Amino acid sequence: MPELRKDPIVGRWVVIATERVRRPADFPRRPAVRRGGPCAFCAGHESETPPEVLAYRDEPGRPDTPGWRVRVVPSKFPALRIEGDLERRGEGIYDLMNGIGAHEVVIESPDHDTELGRLSLPALEDVLRAYRDRITDLKRDARVRSVVVFKNRGSDAGATMEHPHSQLLATPVVPHVVADELHHSRAYHDYRERCMFCDILRQETEAGARVVVATPGAVAFVPFAARVPFETWILPRRHAAAFEQTGDAELREVAAALGTVLGKLDRALGDPPYNLVLHGAPSDVGDSPSFHWHFEILPRLGGLAAFELGSALYVNPVPPEDAGRLLRDTRVD
Amino acid sequence: MPELRKDPIVGRWVVIATERVRRPADFPRRPAVRRGGPCAFCAGHESETPPEVLAYRDEPGRPDTPGWRVRVVPSKFPALRIEGDLERRGEGIYDLMNGIGAHEVVIESPDHDTELGRLSLPALEDVLRAYRDRITDLKRDARVRSVVVFKNRGSDAGATMEHPHSQLLATPVVPHVVADELHHSRAYHDYRERCMFCDILRQETEAGARVVVATPGAVAFVPFAARVPFETWILPRRHAAAFEQTGDAELREVAAALGTVLGKLDRALGDPPYNLVLHGAPSDVGDSPSFHWHFEILPRLGGLAAFELGSALYVNPVPPEDAGRLLRDTRVD
Repeated sequence: MPELRKDPIVGRWVVIATERVRRPADFPRRPAVRRGGPCAFCAGHESETPPEVLAYRDEPGRPDTPGWRVRVVPSKFPALRIEGDLERRGEGIYDLMNGIGAHEVVIESPDHDTELGRLSLPALEDVLRAYRDRITDLKRDARVRSVVVFKNRGSDAGATMEHPHSQLLATPVVPHVVADELHHSRAYHDYRERCMFCDILRQETEAGARVVVATPGAVAFVPFAARVPFETWILPRRHAAAFEQTGDAELREVAAALGTVLGKLDRALGDPPYNLVLHGAPSDVGDSPSFHWHFEILPRLGGLAAFELGSALYVNPVPPEDAGRLLRDTRVD
Repeated sequence: MPELRKDPIVGRWVVIATERVRRPADFPRRPAVRRGGPCAFCAGHESETPPEVLAYRDEPGRPDTPGWRVRVVPSKFPALRIEGDLERRGEGIYDLMNGIGAHEVVIESPDHDTELGRLSLPALEDVLRAYRDRITDLKRDARVRSVVVFKNRGSDAGATMEHPHSQLLATPVVPHVVADELHHSRAYHDYRERCMFCDILRQETEAGARVVVATPGAVAFVPFAARVPFETWILPRRHAAAFEQTGDAELREVAAALGTVLGKLDRALGDPPYNLVLHGAPSDVGDSPSFHWHFEILPRLGGLAAFELGSALYVNPVPPEDAGRLLRDTRVD
């Protein structure tokens, strides 16, 4: 059973494996990416994954058989385990609990050789709908406080499988960055009685310099203080704290914006490795007036060095206004 | 002139370049590491760096000539600039200021082919003394609030020069992670009227399971909630908020602990890439009873993926107790 341990100095929860490591060389490392299909995520290889927890099919069919458009399975190497009690406890000044949670894989397409950014609009909608359905289901578990969706595209961004997929991690704690966002946006709301994200949306769409694409339902822009070149956020125009509050029409708008952004990044930067993360409100603040769900996309064009990692002071060599303009002007058709 | 921009959602300052980027391919990327010496940091090549701001020599000698043991020069590619005023200002809901500060390189040895972890104790003391002298000097500038020392060893950790060196970044803002540490340790002190770091030191030395090495003046241990395998912190036993408050005898103890830790990491993990960062108190809290300066060393054995980067929820596959034991048992002699 993994443990969740809290760093008391910054309040950061870390998942710690508890399998004994006997020699320095023995600890589990990230496997190398095998190139070329077919793989365990391909249609016809359903028996190579744990049994599916969700699949969308054109025709009704048996679980774990081909015919699916999007398929969600538990991770074969879960960071957290679903069975057990949290058993929150102390160890002197430290705090810890059992590593309870869920770790699932969203297989975005049966086709090994496609990419999230190349999917048709209906296929992209399927992927977002799968996020929504799984978040809704996982949050029914009273132990789950937060569900973060993330995607690593390319081995330089941490991907270990080539087949297009994203992951969900349901945790009994609020991840550090999300907790930070909640804290600051609540303080802003306390003072101004407005959502900070809504204010940002208003300022970004009025200024326009950093906007990448705007649909009637969603806006994508390079943030004012982007950490890395071509970082892009996508926010729904309508205020909503939790992603699972998104209706079908809005989901389509968000899917269109996401597809356009990923297409532009691929075109402008030559299929860069990237990380994508979906930040939504934790269970206990589901209809918060101060938090606003959003996607953050971080192209990984250079490595992270000590200063970024150890101090979180990022140095971004590309002005966000230039990144916004370059992406805005990139054609995808 | 670069800008410092604040992300309003998490309060994180980012250094943003302002040189115009015209095409996506045009932005400055990290140069590839050239292998083998001699390089601009080698003895005899002093004219290839900006003029030195500090050097320790056995015999008095002219600046920027050979004969030095440790040499500090301004960075040739500074993230921040020394000249100018901060001009703090707003842009709608955003906050920014000019990118004022200093960015210096500490050349740890005239010898291209050595490593920080292989230096003699007196040479390591020289390096730490150079940190201390430069921090003291940089903090005399009223615009400087914080000085972070960091080191990237190996290109996988972000190094662009092979020659052993570390860097100092003096900033008019407190880096996000340091601000977080200050905030949490102050809250702890408000409640318990004790320094959290001193309490951690007491618990770690009593338990012993995570201790890597202890000298009369300093303790190195794997933190309870280590983010990455074999992460190691070094703290002075004596409470001190700022590194530059370290006296010569204590500096020797810290140098001995640092040398032992780096030697053990190199031996146990086969010269891994790593990041090292020194967190000290900002200028305005120099004698804080709640903050305690420390080194954090992060071996970079695997890449960082979306979940770590986008949510700061790290998954560490090596129990800190095992990492502590394995390093403690690694012989360096």
